[in-house]
Amino acid sequence: MTEATQPDAGAARAAVIELLGVLAYGEITAFERLAEDAKMAPSVDDKAALAAMAVAEFHHFERLRAHISSLGVDPAEAMAPFVTPLDEFHRHTAPADWLEGLVKAYVGDGIAADFYREVAQHLDPGSRTLVEEVLADTGHADFVVETVRAAIERDPRVAGRLALWGRRLMGEALSQAQRVAAERDALSAMLVGGLAVPGFDLAEIGRMFLRITEAHTERMAALGLAA
Amino acid sequence: MTEATQPDAGAARAAVIELLGVLAYGEITAFERLAEDAKMAPSVDDKAALAAMAVAEFHHFERLRAHISSLGVDPAEAMAPFVTPLDEFHRHTAPADWLEGLVKAYVGDGIAADFYREVAQHLDPGSRTLVEEVLADTGHADFVVETVRAAIERDPRVAGRLALWGRRLMGEALSQAQRVAAERDALSAMLVGGLAVPGFDLAEIGRMFLRITEAHTERMAALGLAA
Repeated sequence: MTEATQPDAGAARAAVIELLGVLAYGEITAFERLAEDAKMAPSVDDKAALAAMAVAEFHHFERLRAHISSLGVDPAEAMAPFVTPLDEFHRHTAPADWLEGLVKAYVGDGIAADFYREVAQHLDPGSRTLVEEVLADTGHADFVVETVRAAIERDPRVAGRLALWGRRLMGEALSQAQRVAAERDALSAMLVGGLAVPGFDLAEIGRMFLRITEAHTERMAALGLAA
Repeated sequence: MTEATQPDAGAARAAVIELLGVLAYGEITAFERLAEDAKMAPSVDDKAALAAMAVAEFHHFERLRAHISSLGVDPAEAMAPFVTPLDEFHRHTAPADWLEGLVKAYVGDGIAADFYREVAQHLDPGSRTLVEEVLADTGHADFVVETVRAAIERDPRVAGRLALWGRRLMGEALSQAQRVAAERDALSAMLVGGLAVPGFDLAEIGRMFLRITEAHTERMAALGLAA
């Protein structure tokens, strides 16, 4: 290992740990939020469906935490920088009812998953595989899509309110993502190509955000909502 | 099958389904409550420990729900009679802080588990095995005992408050159990020996409550609290 590659290897490792840290804290707060939203469920079956989504997130958290430990890093320390931005995101986007909770679960997790999946392309193969597995669709999306579409069919007026809600979720997600990017040097360096990461420059960042926005529009359309 | 055994078989089946129903709803509300209490955790590690307890309860719920379905019964219908008493129990025993939440998780679940385990002795072998497996200690008790004892060591005054809290939990649990017993004929018939269940009469019920109370006293002592 030459002197020239040494700092890059350290920075790449720091970026990986930051990505795993934000993902891990994201998963455990997703668990908490979905479990909380399950209380608004109109039936025990609906409650169980949302609880199952929460439990899937917790198992992702466990895998990420184990992977962080295996890299010789304290998971709590890796997560620490992301506690405030993620808690803020959830504080600013507390659902007012069951349907808002479902839209947030589907759209919010979708935006986060797209972002992490994009970034994961630039990780070492072991970390990338873990991130992709953790982010793989857990098969709960169908439940949300069916429930929201049925609610709009019963009362078309809810579509307007939920469309506004989806835009607010996107806005808050971007605002907290910017905050994280501004504060975390290693992650940002990876994002803007400051590391020896081929094919990941500012133009690529622009295309990435475009892809994420397009996927968001598709998810809103799947729910029967204007993005 | 004779005419004399026919009604007993039907009543025994109803009692089994009621027991599985109250257990299943108990597990999913335990999931919700533990996930809710996890928000009060003083650290991410503590939060993850309580979330893991919540997730274990949800997996119990899944097994019980599958077993109820396999008996040809709609799980939501089996759970329906127990929604109000269990929701009332949790509404009357909302923990004011992290330590009260831990004591409730440990002591409350202990009381419930003792009761279900006693009743399970009188079930068919398949249902009994499931109930016993679901109620087996999930290994999270150590975390609660260590955390509560450490808190008392730091500030001995919390012991008095938590001891009062433990008595209140026991009182609420008994009050809701009486309510369920008064309303559910099949379960009560099984409990007072109205079914052809050998060795389960009123004297046995008295001994059962004595055993549950003794086990509660032991759990309180394990936490360093007077029962």
